[in-house]
This record gives sequence, structure tokens and C-alpha cells, in this order.
Amino acid sequence: MEALDYHAEERRKAEFDVEEMKVVWAGSPHEYEMSDRVARVVASDPVFRKDNRTMLSRKDLFKDTLRKVAHAWKRIIELHLSEEEVNKLWFYVDQPAYADLHFGMFIPAIKGQGTDEQQEKWLPMAYKMQIIGCYAQTELGHGSNVQGLETTATFDPQTDEFVIHSPTLTSSKWWPGGLGKASTHAVVYARLITDGQDLGVHGFIVQLRSLDDHSPLPGITVGDIGMKFGSGAYNSMDNGVLRFDHVRIPRNQMLMSVAQVTREGKYIQSDVPRQLVYGTMVFIRQKIVSDASCALSRAVCIATRYSAVRRQFGSQNSGPETQVINYKTQQSRLFPLLASAYAFRFVGEWLKWLYTDVTQRLQANDFSTLPEVHACTAGLKSITSSATADAIEECRKLCGGHGYLSSSGLPELFAVYVPACTYEGDNFVMLLQVARFLMKTVSQLGSGKKPVGTTAYMGRAEHLMQCCCEVESAEDWLKPSVILEAFEARAAGMSVTCAKNLSKFSNPEEGFAELSADLVEAAVAHCQLIVVSKFIEKLQQDIPGKGVKRQLEILCNVYALYLVHKHLGDFISTGCITPKQGAQANEQLRLLYSQVRPNAIALVDAFNYTDHYLSSILGRYDGNVYQKLYDEAWKDPLNDTDVPDGYHEYIRPILKQHILTARL
Amino acid sequence: MEALDYHAEERRKAEFDVEEMKVVWAGSPHEYEMSDRVARVVASDPVFRKDNRTMLSRKDLFKDTLRKVAHAWKRIIELHLSEEEVNKLWFYVDQPAYADLHFGMFIPAIKGQGTDEQQEKWLPMAYKMQIIGCYAQTELGHGSNVQGLETTATFDPQTDEFVIHSPTLTSSKWWPGGLGKASTHAVVYARLITDGQDLGVHGFIVQLRSLDDHSPLPGITVGDIGMKFGSGAYNSMDNGVLRFDHVRIPRNQMLMSVAQVTREGKYIQSDVPRQLVYGTMVFIRQKIVSDASCALSRAVCIATRYSAVRRQFGSQNSGPETQVINYKTQQSRLFPLLASAYAFRFVGEWLKWLYTDVTQRLQANDFSTLPEVHACTAGLKSITSSATADAIEECRKLCGGHGYLSSSGLPELFAVYVPACTYEGDNFVMLLQVARFLMKTVSQLGSGKKPVGTTAYMGRAEHLMQCCCEVESAEDWLKPSVILEAFEARAAGMSVTCAKNLSKFSNPEEGFAELSADLVEAAVAHCQLIVVSKFIEKLQQDIPGKGVKRQLEILCNVYALYLVHKHLGDFISTGCITPKQGAQANEQLRLLYSQVRPNAIALVDAFNYTDHYLSSILGRYDGNVYQKLYDEAWKDPLNDTDVPDGYHEYIRPILKQHILTARL
Repeated sequence: MEALDYHAEERRKAEFDVEEMKVVWAGSPHEYEMSDRVARVVASDPVFRKDNRTMLSRKDLFKDTLRKVAHAWKRIIELHLSEEEVNKLWFYVDQPAYADLHFGMFIPAIKGQGTDEQQEKWLPMAYKMQIIGCYAQTELGHGSNVQGLETTATFDPQTDEFVIHSPTLTSSKWWPGGLGKASTHAVVYARLITDGQDLGVHGFIVQLRSLDDHSPLPGITVGDIGMKFGSGAYNSMDNGVLRFDHVRIPRNQMLMSVAQVTREGKYIQSDVPRQLVYGTMVFIRQKIVSDASCALSRAVCIATRYSAVRRQFGSQNSGPETQVINYKTQQSRLFPLLASAYAFRFVGEWLKWLYTDVTQRLQANDFSTLPEVHACTAGLKSITSSATADAIEECRKLCGGHGYLSSSGLPELFAVYVPACTYEGDNFVMLLQVARFLMKTVSQLGSGKKPVGTTAYMGRAEHLMQCCCEVESAEDWLKPSVILEAFEARAAGMSVTCAKNLSKFSNPEEGFAELSADLVEAAVAHCQLIVVSKFIEKLQQDIPGKGVKRQLEILCNVYALYLVHKHLGDFISTGCITPKQGAQANEQLRLLYSQVRPNAIALVDAFNYTDHYLSSILGRYDGNVYQKLYDEAWKDPLNDTDVPDGYHEYIRPILKQHILTARL
Repeated sequence: MEALDYHAEERRKAEFDVEEMKVVWAGSPHEYEMSDRVARVVASDPVFRKDNRTMLSRKDLFKDTLRKVAHAWKRIIELHLSEEEVNKLWFYVDQPAYADLHFGMFIPAIKGQGTDEQQEKWLPMAYKMQIIGCYAQTELGHGSNVQGLETTATFDPQTDEFVIHSPTLTSSKWWPGGLGKASTHAVVYARLITDGQDLGVHGFIVQLRSLDDHSPLPGITVGDIGMKFGSGAYNSMDNGVLRFDHVRIPRNQMLMSVAQVTREGKYIQSDVPRQLVYGTMVFIRQKIVSDASCALSRAVCIATRYSAVRRQFGSQNSGPETQVINYKTQQSRLFPLLASAYAFRFVGEWLKWLYTDVTQRLQANDFSTLPEVHACTAGLKSITSSATADAIEECRKLCGGHGYLSSSGLPELFAVYVPACTYEGDNFVMLLQVARFLMKTVSQLGSGKKPVGTTAYMGRAEHLMQCCCEVESAEDWLKPSVILEAFEARAAGMSVTCAKNLSKFSNPEEGFAELSADLVEAAVAHCQLIVVSKFIEKLQQDIPGKGVKRQLEILCNVYALYLVHKHLGDFISTGCITPKQGAQANEQLRLLYSQVRPNAIALVDAFNYTDHYLSSILGRYDGNVYQKLYDEAWKDPLNDTDVPDGYHEYIRPILKQHILTARL
């Protein structure tokens, strides 16, 4: 018997080799094979079931997380998984859990900031999960501004200890994942005070709970901060609150690779360059970009598949109605997001390379590229996560009413994704940092210091601001050189204009504050240029597989022209394109949508997501949406009984009342 | 003892009479007094508590809804509330419940489509809630396209009955609120079939459940469709699924004011004009616009108050950090939303008038304004609900990490609001209807038929498309005439361009489909013009109170110039403004933000929301945010015990393991 596949016809329409595209998406044949294998391990394991997650109470959901982590850990050991396989496994388990912070933040913090001795002591225990750790930085009153943290670590030379203390309510640690219930230890960030002197924020390893019975240690108040956005989603995580009442730790639990306190209480900075910490930041932010392409592609996969199943209006001779994916309004909203998923994937891939490159340079004490790399990752973190958050919600709306059901998977995906816009650097704060870097770059243009890497185009700013786009017909917009020049001209123009306006202020800081909304827009223009240019660079590589490169060219053009249309005011204002050329870009965009249409389903199949990972009835591979929606409904606890709990107390008395006095 | 008020200083800064602004916001002194009084009744009643809602299981949440409805009903009777007071009460109870559909859809459907006789029979029972009804239109496979519904109502002349049947899975009724568990009756929309002839969709009153024990009647399969977006939110509502297996109802339960079936099975259309049904649609959509201003103002109130409490960076001489509301990036994101809240309020007020006007005309058989009124309400429903959904999420992000906590109130507000973009006409379908109307208007321009009402400016299209905006300095953008002309020129230009492009297609329908994305943008431009022009008209009225009018003028300018900046490409492309003038608009906008700043808190105080209604710790009137966030956290069920449930099964074994074989 052949398997049911409502999308079979759509799949036959594809004009390219889907299997080859899967490899392109994964990054390499090895990545593809490994990812595919691990995805199946997770999908086939009943413990990793997640389709009932939004129906669980907070306590049950948290217990489910504990169970999954324990089971994942067991499987990791049994299957002898390698590090990359382990990472993939957590990815496909797809449930925020304390283990993410233990492996993703606690261990890296000790590796990055601990001395060799400290690493030898703590890492083996941590790797084996004989202790569970988290990363306690953010406080109730202090987020982005790390230097504003209030928790204190006061050195007591008499006992050779630090006294960790929460002096105010707002100094309570607040938000750290895994802190609330699971962690036995934390890397705690606190103001180091020795001899009455405040030496700024440093990291300390602090034990929070007994290793015997998990109860909080004396002086420690710890708990969960309560429900967060959505059902399921991040409520599986025990984001925590933590207060210290004069908790003492040995001196050697301060992380001392960058600075240390001696037995006498003397503060000594090591000669390890402080810039090294930026390496970690670059790593985390490039990972966020990569995560963005995953979350976005997941949402797009659901919306695209359901758009091919769903029919509405346009029935001819009482035949079936039209598939909504055939409507131009649907295409004009959906296909740019599909293109964005690929664009973010490739810029993420490039960022991985950039991270490797900067790491090697740092090890060789070459800090020259660091400011540009830092601006670049901060900016890309910001624009990809903002765009992804918006896109998930747009995909939900593109599914009509049914997108609002938890079983569509989209509400939970949105709720679990949106914190990416805030954590690891608020997206607007990030863009202001990019803008600051851009203004510095512009100010140095005359000095002979040549801008490098992603800002190299700034060296041609004067030329770019004069240039007129050569588009004469809509088709001209397909040329990569035309697109690139338009994006460069726009980005350079906006930065230079900001710099000019800044120069009118006598106090530069005041000017920066006053013009910050414009500066943010200039930073966005710069970052979008990076994404577009990396997509174009990708296409200059050899990409095997029938029709694969052609599809990617179409998507690259869709992504770029969609941005031209969306930010048309910028492009026209900086003088590089005329309103007529803008209209031509829009015309070309419409033609491109028709070329995407027959390939849409295959383009989302190429993400190679299992139904387990998607966790969406609307996004099912086989398209059997309505039967499964119907079946799923009956699983809601409200349907346990025909007559609802509360009928006798609250419905029957109303129905049976005899009202004499009501005015209604 | 004086009450704690962290916002006291902010409130002192206000440059206008807040009490007078409250009256403006409410609509009249009477509205203000009534609304304020009912809000207090609800806020002071412990049964109406809703701060724990996101922590309840589905079953408990639904039971809580039943309890609240029963209690509200009791209070309504005890207090002898008038109809407007009752509406306010439900508004402030602020929990989606079956009663909304009973009073808001079931009763109006019978009133609108039932004969006098039918109304006499059913309405008294419905008003007294001796029956509970819902509105069963949408089906699993059929949303926007009502004509595509599949449920059948076949007349059986032998028994003088209709046989209601669900012939397919996709014909299952799906989504109707109140259907799943509470309703005893429904108005069911089904294809009327008599004598083998399909006569299209009509409404029928069908009893679903026994009035004795609430069990579903024979042939009826009914249940809840399961969890929806978010925790709390719409999960308090029993959106339902319903299938009929040849259910028989008497002939007189077809709603027969517009068409009837005789004893012999003959179908007769009455002379009641079909246009009357549009009156109901206009009513519902104007209500959605009014709801949009409520939801938006609520989110803005929370974000504004918390932006004044929250401090970040910018500490000087280790003084306190800067209030985030002082940052221009914060202002440039927040203040346009504040202005939008007022803009939507006033256009909603105008729509109420429009509804009254069109109702009077319909009663006098004057259908002349109907197409314009219909387009106008459909379009305003669309742009205000889309903008509000986006704005709520933006407000959440403006609150930083804490906005992600359920206790901020914003996640639930978002989750409960977003369906407004889809129900009662999907926002994109609505805009296409507006566009269709606009294209018709343009096509008739030469014919001497003068466009009326909100499209009157189209009569000057030729002039508008030639006109050049007279702005020479940023300040010129403060003139209402300048703003109005720019918005008219943009809207007219976009419609005329679309019409020109359409004329290039030999098949107009094909052209309309192909250009639909552009048409949607033209419709948005038209609708934004309406909002701006109604705000300007409001300001031409006499508005008492010190400084009140001045503040509204500032907000009107913020709203308009924000749109100019956001859609700059449109404005420049249609030739009415130059890039330089666009930059001047942006410059003026920045200056306006400084004028809003000292009044921001007072401007959100003017919404007069109780802390109960806001249901947000971040938005508390007294600004005592951090203490209350901290206190609230401990109420989470996870904090019932220090050591979490699951520790012994899933954490302890990991911590205590002895791994010999792991590769990690």
C-alpha cells in the first residue's frame, strides 16, 4: 500500500534535485547524514514525544523536562555519541532545559575564565554532570548593562574567603535558565570588593544546593521566576531567582584567568588579553544567527505546506477551491520568508567561518579584525532574530484561523523563539553598537585607514553616493552586481548622512543619543547588505545538483528585491535608485514569485525536518491536515467528559433560573 | 500615610489636565463616569480576579470562566445594570467566555434574520439565558468563503422538517466560541436544499444539548477543539467542533426574515433588502476598531509606565542609571504607538457615528452610502487590528526581558488579541475588498459620478497627483493641511497607478489577482488617510481642559509623521514629497518626541485603566514593579517545594552516576 501523500503532486512539480538541496542546506554531506540520523533517533523515541506539551501543567511540564534530559543523557552514553551528535540530539529534543545552560554557558564560562587549575578541578565533574551549573549574571534590576550589577563578592582576608551578598532587592539574580530548580552550582557575576575597593564585575563559582539532598544551602534563597510567554515553550525551563545572604566561598572559586585576588587580598590583572572574552560572544551570537535560520525555516515549512493544502474561494464549475499558495498576496508574504530562511542559513554558515578565523587570530594575538567581527555578529544577531520573530508570527497568520491552534505548532514556536530578540544583547542595543562602529569607520575614511571585511565598501563611499543604478528594465534587477551596488549605496549613504548630522552637535554623545533612531536604521541597512552579499558570494561557489543553484539564485533575488521594496524610501532617498526603478524591482519580484511557486514544497522539504521536530499538524509531511486536526481535538482534557466540570454549579442554575427583576 | 507612587514625579511633569483627557478618551462625561464606576465594581470583586489565570490548567481555566459568567450574571441582576453597563462589565471582566457569543452573535443573528414570530419565540428565552446559544458558521475546511460551507439542511416535506447533516469531515463546524461545552443551542449555517436544489447558505436554529442534563442530543457530536495560542488568553473559551448525523429540526427553525421555505418546500425570497445584513457587519467591524484602541492603549500603558521605572546605562557619578523612556530609540518605538492608540480611538468614535448614520439610511431604504461604508469599516478593521497586534508585541519587547514574564500581562494580551486579525474577515481579504472598491471608484472618475465620503479626495486625484508638498522646513510638517495633502496625494497616486497597471491586463480578474500585493498597499494608504483625517477633524472640534487639545495635536502629528517615515517610499514614489522633505518629516518627528516625553505617563493615565484590568505588574499605577515581580514569582506551583518533583527519578541518578564508558 502506498503511503498517503497529499503533497505528491506538489513534489512532482519541483524543478530541482531535492536531495542535493538537503545537502546544501545541511552544509555538507557529512552534516546531512549525521543530522538526519540523529533526527530519526529522537523522533522514534516515545520519551521525546512533545505533541502534548502545551497541555501539561507547569509542574508536569518541568518534570517532563527532567525526564527528557535524563533520558537524553542515558542515550548519549549508550550510543557513544560524539560532540556534534550530542549537539544535534539536544537540538532535535527541542525542549528548553537546564542542560542547555550547563553545557552551553556554565562549562564554557569555566573554560574561558578559569585558570588551568580551576578547569582541572571543575570541568571533569561538570562534563560528567556530577554537578549541574548555570550562568547567573542578569539581575532583577539589571539586564543589558553588566557593569550595573549589584551583587557583591567581598574578600575577607581573615578567612581567605569571598562573601557573596545580595545587598538590594534589585540585585536578586533573575532569569538565569536552570537556576530555579535544577542547578547545584552557578557561575555568579558579582562586584569584586577587596579592601573597600570596588573592582568591577567578576565571575565566581558558587554551590547553591546540597549534593546529598538538593536542598538549598544556608544563605541561599532560590526559586523559579514563574510562568513565561505561551504554553509549553520556555515554561519547560526553570529560569530562576537567587538571593545571597552573606554566603562564603573559598578564594579559589573566583574565576581567575583574567584577574586574580591574592591571599593578601591584592588584585592582580593577568596578561591574558581581555579581548579573548569577545571570542565567546562571537561564538554565541553566530549560534543565534544559525538558530534563527532553523526557527524561521521551521515556521516557513509549516506555512508553505499548509498553504498548498488549504483551499479558499475561486472554485470554478463547483470544482475544488483554489490552493491559497496560488494567491499572489499569499506568495508576496510567504516567499520572502522562505528566501530569508536560506539567506540566514548562508550568512550563518559564513559566520561560523568568521568565528574560526577570529579565534585563530586571537590565539596569535592579532586583534585587528575584532571590532569589525564584533559589530558584524552583533548586527547579524539583531536583524536575523528580529526578522525571524516577526516571520514566525506572519507564518502563523498565513495559516488563517488554524494557525492559532496549539496543534499548528506555530504559537509555541513563536513563544519559545522571541526571547532571542532580547537575550545575549537586546537587538536595539546591538544595532547601536553597530552604528557606533560605522560612525567610527566613516570618521576614519579621510585618514587613509582602509575599512576592511564587511565594511570594505565604505572605502568607496564617495563613489557609491554618486552612482546611479543602471536598471532600465525589470530584468536588470536580476544582476548580482546591480543588487550589490544598490545595497552598498544605500548603506553607505545612510551612514554618511548620519555622520553629517552628528557633526552638527557640539557634544558627540548627545548627538548620538538624539539621532539614535536614524543610526539604528543605518545599522540595519549595513547588516542587510552583509546578508545579501554573503548570499551572492555563496552563489559564486560551485553548487552541484540539477537545478539547485538556479533555485538559490531565484531565492537570492527574492530576498534582495523584497528588501528593496520594503525599504524603498531608504534606497530612493540616498539617490541610488529612482522611483521608477523601485517599481521595476517590485515588478521583477512578482515574476520571481511565479518561479518559486512550483518549487515551494520541495524547497521546504529540503530542510529535512521530521514531523516530530516540526510538531505541527498543519506542517505534516503527508499533508493529511484535517483528519489529524479533528483527531487531535478530542485529546484536550476538556473533552474528557461530555458535560463539563462546573456545569452543575455554574451553568444549570443560570438555565433554570426564574428572573423577575432583571431589567434585561 | 501617603500611598507609594514611584510615578509621582512623572505625573507632576504633565502639561495638561489629565482628568479632562480621561473624558476625551472615554467619549463623554457620562461614558467616563459609567465606565469608571463599572471598572471599580469588577476590580473590587475577588471572583473576577485574573492574575492567576495563566497558571490554571485548561479544565480549571474553563471552570473559572463558567464561575465568572455565573457571577457576572448574578451581579448584573442584583445591580439592575443597564445595557451599556452590562457591556462595560463584560469588557472589564476581560475573559473570553461563551456569554460573548451568546449576547454578541447568537441573539443578534436571531434579531437580524428571524421573523417577528421567531424573535418572539426565541429572544425572551435567550435574553434570560434560559438557553445558551452560539454562532456556528466556520467549518474545518471553510473560513472566509462562506459560500463554500458544506453542512446541509435538506427539507423533508413528508415531516415538515429540515435534516441537518455534516456530509464530510471538512464540513465539521470548527471554531465557534461557546460551542464546545456551554451552548445548548446554535444558529447553524448550512446549505439549504429543497427538492434536490442547492439554494445556498442559510441560518437555522438547532438545539445541541438537553436542557435537562446538558448531554448532547442524538445525532450531535460536539466538543472543544483544544488548546490555542498562549496560556490563559482564549483558552478560557470553549471554541467547538460540531458534527451532525441527520439531525431533524422543525421547518420554523430556519431563520426566515430574508427567505423562507413553505410547507410545500417552496423557496420564497422576501422583499426585505439583502443589504440589511451589511448593517450587522458594519456594527461588528466598528466594534473591532474600538477594541483595537483598547488593546493597544492597554499595551502602551504598560510599556510606558515600565519605561519610566526601568533604568539602564548612562549612570553619571554612580548616580542612578537613565530611565529607558529617555532614550530616543525607546521613544521612537513607543510614542508612535501611544499616538496610534489615540488615533484609533477617535476613528473608532467616528465609525460609531457612521454606523448610526448608515443604519438610519438603511431603514429609509437608502443604500447609496453602503459600498463606501462597507469598504471603510472593512479597511479600518484590517489596519487597526494588524497594527495593534504588532504593537502589543513591540510593547512587550520595549519592556526588555521582563516583558516575557506572564506577570507582565503582555504575553496574554498578545495571545488573546491576535485572532482579531483573522476573525470577522481576514485582514488581507478585507484589504482586497477595499482595493476592489477603490478600483471601481477610480474607474468611475471620468463618468461624472462623484466619489463621496472617505473617497471624496479621489475626485481631486488629477490635481493631487500633480501637487508638490509645500514643506520648506521641518516645522511646516506641523500644518494639518500639509499632512492631509501628502496623505491624499499618496493614496490617490497609489490607487491610480494600480488602476493603470490593471488596465494592461486583458482579463481584469487575472490582473487583479496578479497585482493583489500592490492593491493591498494602495488600500492601506487609503485607510491610513482616513485615520489621519479623522484625527485632524477631531482637533477641529472644541476640546476643553488645560493643554488637552495641545497634547492631542502633538499626538496627531506624531501619528502622521511616523507613517510618512515608515512608508517614505510610497510618499516619494508618488511624487508628492521629495527625499529632503521626507528627512524633514523625520527631523520634526524627533522634536515631537521631546514634547511627548514629559506627558507620557499622564497620557496613559488618561486611559483610566485599573490595575485589575491591566493585569500587569510592569504596568502598575504606583510603579512598584520590582518588589511585586519578586513576590509574584513565589506563587508559581514549581515553588511549592524547594526540591522539585522529579528530583529523585531524574536528577539524583545523573548526579550520582559513575560513568566509565562515555566519550564525553
